[in-house]
Amino acid sequence: MSTIRVGIVGYGNLGKGAAAAVAQAPDMELTAIFTRREPTGIEAPAPVIRLSEAAAYQDKIDVMLLCGGSATDLPEQGPALAALFSTVDSFDTHAHIPDYFAAVDAAAKAHGQASIISTGWDPGLFSLQRLLAETVLPQGKEYTFWGKGVSQGHSDAIRRIEGVADAKQYTIPLESALTAVRNGENPDLTARQKHRRDCYVVTKQGADQAKIAETICRMPNYFADYDTNVYFISAEQFAAEHSAMPHGGFVCRSGQTGHGTQQFMEFSLQLGSNPEFTGSVLAAYARAVYRLKQHGARGAFTVFDAPFAWLSPESSDVLRARLL
Amino acid sequence: MSTIRVGIVGYGNLGKGAAAAVAQAPDMELTAIFTRREPTGIEAPAPVIRLSEAAAYQDKIDVMLLCGGSATDLPEQGPALAALFSTVDSFDTHAHIPDYFAAVDAAAKAHGQASIISTGWDPGLFSLQRLLAETVLPQGKEYTFWGKGVSQGHSDAIRRIEGVADAKQYTIPLESALTAVRNGENPDLTARQKHRRDCYVVTKQGADQAKIAETICRMPNYFADYDTNVYFISAEQFAAEHSAMPHGGFVCRSGQTGHGTQQFMEFSLQLGSNPEFTGSVLAAYARAVYRLKQHGARGAFTVFDAPFAWLSPESSDVLRARLL
Repeated sequence: MSTIRVGIVGYGNLGKGAAAAVAQAPDMELTAIFTRREPTGIEAPAPVIRLSEAAAYQDKIDVMLLCGGSATDLPEQGPALAALFSTVDSFDTHAHIPDYFAAVDAAAKAHGQASIISTGWDPGLFSLQRLLAETVLPQGKEYTFWGKGVSQGHSDAIRRIEGVADAKQYTIPLESALTAVRNGENPDLTARQKHRRDCYVVTKQGADQAKIAETICRMPNYFADYDTNVYFISAEQFAAEHSAMPHGGFVCRSGQTGHGTQQFMEFSLQLGSNPEFTGSVLAAYARAVYRLKQHGARGAFTVFDAPFAWLSPESSDVLRARLL
Repeated sequence: MSTIRVGIVGYGNLGKGAAAAVAQAPDMELTAIFTRREPTGIEAPAPVIRLSEAAAYQDKIDVMLLCGGSATDLPEQGPALAALFSTVDSFDTHAHIPDYFAAVDAAAKAHGQASIISTGWDPGLFSLQRLLAETVLPQGKEYTFWGKGVSQGHSDAIRRIEGVADAKQYTIPLESALTAVRNGENPDLTARQKHRRDCYVVTKQGADQAKIAETICRMPNYFADYDTNVYFISAEQFAAEHSAMPHGGFVCRSGQTGHGTQQFMEFSLQLGSNPEFTGSVLAAYARAVYRLKQHGARGAFTVFDAPFAWLSPESSDVLRARLL
């Protein structure tokens, strides 16, 4: 079992989750953490280096875990770092994945590197389950439910409303919809029938709470199509009860084989911490990209392209005897 | 999308399930079905040929789906046919998998073929989920529950008891245990705490039902370690209510990331027909072995070795845009 030397780019919640995952891996060592911030004073389990100096680490790092955001960080960092290192990221803007893939693919191929993009759990593990389920049950219907969990984008949207000091939005899958899907009823579900949105909001002094609640519930795209509950709470209660970042969800496929025989597959996650879990997936895929490169693969890849054996530090012999 | 020419060996419940799955696949055609029985009069969706004549089909078949049993058929047929064809099977005697792998591997390598062994759902999809879960959550505990479903081996054991005309045994996962696991309690569970066994038995005229029930409940390995219910029913009720072959189960992993953060992954199946679902998995892995061979792989492989992209008839571009 050779040791994989790992670097982390970006040390926010996801970067910290990835560092914790690397610490649990018997076959990895964390060489350095790279940041665009001033490194002095950042407490971390490895040396913290300016991102602008990353190129000097090409011989010291086997795989770089890119832990920046999908909106502005990764579109720039992904292709730039894929030219220097094997990389793994969790790029999650679904609509832009083909373009991002092409940019990373071109950079990696031009410089003899390999990258796995869009790992994590959705995209990532959920995508894998969708693919597995539709290949086994081609006649069927797929359902994805998210939650219970914090949606960062929806929380941000609330925080931008005048008078709001802080806010957190939980997406909640509706049990009635899940039950109908599990019963093989193949329902056609609207957004409102699948998820509810619960918002916990701290307001500034003198804010008009009724107006804030109305603004939230009427917000197009974000809330207007859902049953939305708005709860105004104190800053103390917010800090005490809403500081964790839970998430999760369900990927279900209801299918038919033979002459209308019902078959049902379900994959679900209940995550105490979204960034720690996502960081753990990044770490597992560090092994996959390391082995892809060892096998001569160059360019960009996704979770669809790596056999599960390559996620494990153990040999195929051991895996067959122990897990098959 | 090239067409994969498929053959099926063995035309019992599993073979029929595999044929139904091939019929659903846009990129496969069923070339022939091979049997050790007299082919005349067997109704099937493709020509039925004597297994002894299979070698003549080497140029007509790309992948052979082996649908015999693990006890006596596959140990002989697996290596023999792996020398002639790319094969996929569902060998499921866990303890003998390493030996079976070695035999198929040697035959396939000696003759330039590729085989995927032990697909289906356990081993197979459940094995994949165990591997994925332990690589993402290395600190954690794995639980597998089976059912509600028919156990063929346990049903057979009951049928061998004197006075029994027919019998079916259902393995039932206990909700209390599943709930404890899902709550992250990491319980240590005995066999009795995980599953219950319900037996539906038709007796011959004059049979001693009390004695039969006692014999079942005391049977070592099969029933003695479980809470077992025995229900005596009529042949008519048996035919009406117990002719289907449902099965399913749950693979759960409860793990910890960071500083003791709870994370939970679960995969479950609710199958209206075990052989039809298993046949569907065999068909999906026909694509995988076909592509493994195209990529130059020779020898025996398992579900751990094939990327999910190779299970799909669609291109990687389409899969990324549609499912990631």
